Amino acid sequence: MALIIQKFGGTSVGNPNKIKAVAERVIKKQKEGNQMVVVLSAMSGETNRLTDFALEMQDIPDPREMDVLLSSGEQVTVSLFSMAVKAKGEDAISFLGDQVRINTDSSHTKARIASIDIERIQAEMANGKVVTVAGFQGVAANGDITTLGRGGSDTTAVALAAALHADACEIFTDVEGVYTTDPNICSKARKIDRISYDEMLELASLGAKVLDIRSVTYAKQYNVPIHVRSTFTETEGTWVVEEDKEMEGRIVSGVTYNKNEARITISGVPDQPGIAAKIFTPISDADVLVDMIIQNQDTGNGLTDMTFTVVRSDYQRTMQILRKVAEEIGATGGVHGSENITKISIVGVGMRNHSGIASTMFKVLAREGINISLISTSEIKVSCVVEEKYTELAVRALHDAFELDKANVPEAETL
Amino acid sequence: MALIIQKFGGTSVGNPNKIKAVAERVIKKQKEGNQMVVVLSAMSGETNRLTDFALEMQDIPDPREMDVLLSSGEQVTVSLFSMAVKAKGEDAISFLGDQVRINTDSSHTKARIASIDIERIQAEMANGKVVTVAGFQGVAANGDITTLGRGGSDTTAVALAAALHADACEIFTDVEGVYTTDPNICSKARKIDRISYDEMLELASLGAKVLDIRSVTYAKQYNVPIHVRSTFTETEGTWVVEEDKEMEGRIVSGVTYNKNEARITISGVPDQPGIAAKIFTPISDADVLVDMIIQNQDTGNGLTDMTFTVVRSDYQRTMQILRKVAEEIGATGGVHGSENITKISIVGVGMRNHSGIASTMFKVLAREGINISLISTSEIKVSCVVEEKYTELAVRALHDAFELDKANVPEAETL
Repeated sequence: MALIIQKFGGTSVGNPNKIKAVAERVIKKQKEGNQMVVVLSAMSGETNRLTDFALEMQDIPDPREMDVLLSSGEQVTVSLFSMAVKAKGEDAISFLGDQVRINTDSSHTKARIASIDIERIQAEMANGKVVTVAGFQGVAANGDITTLGRGGSDTTAVALAAALHADACEIFTDVEGVYTTDPNICSKARKIDRISYDEMLELASLGAKVLDIRSVTYAKQYNVPIHVRSTFTETEGTWVVEEDKEMEGRIVSGVTYNKNEARITISGVPDQPGIAAKIFTPISDADVLVDMIIQNQDTGNGLTDMTFTVVRSDYQRTMQILRKVAEEIGATGGVHGSENITKISIVGVGMRNHSGIASTMFKVLAREGINISLISTSEIKVSCVVEEKYTELAVRALHDAFELDKANVPEAETL
Repeated sequence: MALIIQKFGGTSVGNPNKIKAVAERVIKKQKEGNQMVVVLSAMSGETNRLTDFALEMQDIPDPREMDVLLSSGEQVTVSLFSMAVKAKGEDAISFLGDQVRINTDSSHTKARIASIDIERIQAEMANGKVVTVAGFQGVAANGDITTLGRGGSDTTAVALAAALHADACEIFTDVEGVYTTDPNICSKARKIDRISYDEMLELASLGAKVLDIRSVTYAKQYNVPIHVRSTFTETEGTWVVEEDKEMEGRIVSGVTYNKNEARITISGVPDQPGIAAKIFTPISDADVLVDMIIQNQDTGNGLTDMTFTVVRSDYQRTMQILRKVAEEIGATGGVHGSENITKISIVGVGMRNHSGIASTMFKVLAREGINISLISTSEIKVSCVVEEKYTELAVRALHDAFELDKANVPEAETL
């Protein structure tokens, strides 16, 4: 008997009929002899509906109250789903984040899971019940409801899979799996059969929306095999698993883009030890995540520039914070930035063993007349920030150049 | 400094603008030097929307899951309300039933409050916050969400007022107070300024929808003054308070009707000791509340009839249970009933000191050609079950006969 976690996103449970269809799918899997734990998101559209209400109340909705508000979304789907399972003659029970309980820190709207109490779930599974857990939500030590941020239901599913030592974690979504790039902007995009945790981690953190990054981190840490697949077909999707030889043979596995960042530069900063800490501590204290950071070389006048990117929704807030900081530290060039940027990235574990991949990327972008404003690299990825308007062009050019439409890619040298 | 509980129903918080208006009203009261605890219902229409979803899932929705589902409604309003208060520069915090916590028994969809933990509320009030509590919901000992049934938010408000030793409990609604009868069917209906707990208790239990009966029980038990008033005006409403001399001077305070019951008769029941228990134990075990019970005199053949009323939504279920019971106990006349009935009642503490009120009621109904099928009386009320189609006629005739349109009513003898 296998223990399987199945997570269904908002479009999969978008209306009562879809919820019933999901119930049938889960029951079928259970009847094949599996123990089932189901994680559900809010109905598609619900989170936006609630967020719109919140914005009518307060320009910047209070994070604690926002979590109370948004967590009602999954509450609706898990209860309806349990009713649907019961209507089909099987037993079911729903749990909210604070009932399981899914213990998190107290960072409202972007909490992190600290631990999961699995006793009650195990007891109900032992009773033959389909156990349904509200995704996206948890509970802080003081009993406050927390949420894990957009995509948090994936994290709930994988964290549950890890805590319960599940045999597999199936993430059902409205696409058929993980693609070499976004099929909406590149018709040659190809579904990937198997991808390593590290690659998926980069793809997720770089903008691929199919899986939430924290879910992949958990999966890697606890070696939980993730199967990303479509709710609406029986087709095999993409398995996210440990790296193997075959994967290493590929140089680039995917091209991804992220329009959700903004670029900020603080200029004329006195180039002194500790200056970076003075700039980034207040930003970090405000719970703003900084992605890429570039510090220019001091050109001799004792001043330097610092450029970095943040999530676009944090842009205005970060600009406010930074203007104060600029005054305090006497940054002569002031603060400026842009929300119209995209981060384009190529990812592949094969890069570890191949040189020249980054320069190939730069050449391809240059050939298309696209200027690069920031670069960042890791062992298995290269990212370039470009103007937002070049997004589609850059993605297609790179997808072609690295021949990602082919299942087997020739050596890098032939590019 | 007074401590005031204010409860706003679904129509008072029916959309974002209304929620903001309520926030302003609460803040104004706080600024007059009061500590404020606010209890909110779900937005009007929300409970029906969710119930419709549930009925699409399951013919008889699972009660535990129904509570998970419905409790999401208040979760939305309390969080939005707290945001609205914060947007106006005051501090606020929301609590759900399981956070306060409002401890209940485990009777899903109609739980009873056992106790309330007030420490957290008191601490947040001491911090100057407007504390908002989700009405209608509580938590069972095992951590399951429970709900108190329709109108349960009133109970939450009064129970909180009692637990916190509040100075007043204001119940805001879409009407201006408690009326001598339903103004929708009797144009002469008059708003009552002050009414006793006992009268309100009878009126509420007999069908007046303005206050939930359990809230009045709590209020009486802990001597919490309730002020029923309109959300949309500043007009004084109706105070529900301890009985006084003036109230005793009135014979009948109100006429009410309840179309929400159904009548069931089990005939040809062997007239033996213990037979009533055999009939009503399985009904009570199914959590069905029985209201009026009439047992006919054994006419000599050793058989009797038993007639009673239940809430209309429990009618089909009770009929099913009773058919089994009839077979088991050998009731020769079978089970029959009707859903098309109304219970018409007159209520007044003055009845204690006046005789002949019941017979006046019977005469008035007889004059209008209305047949009475069940009668039940208490110290301060007389109820008659009649055919549903006579509801309006009966109410108007009784309102006229007892001159309820006048603030001061002459002695009964003049009727």
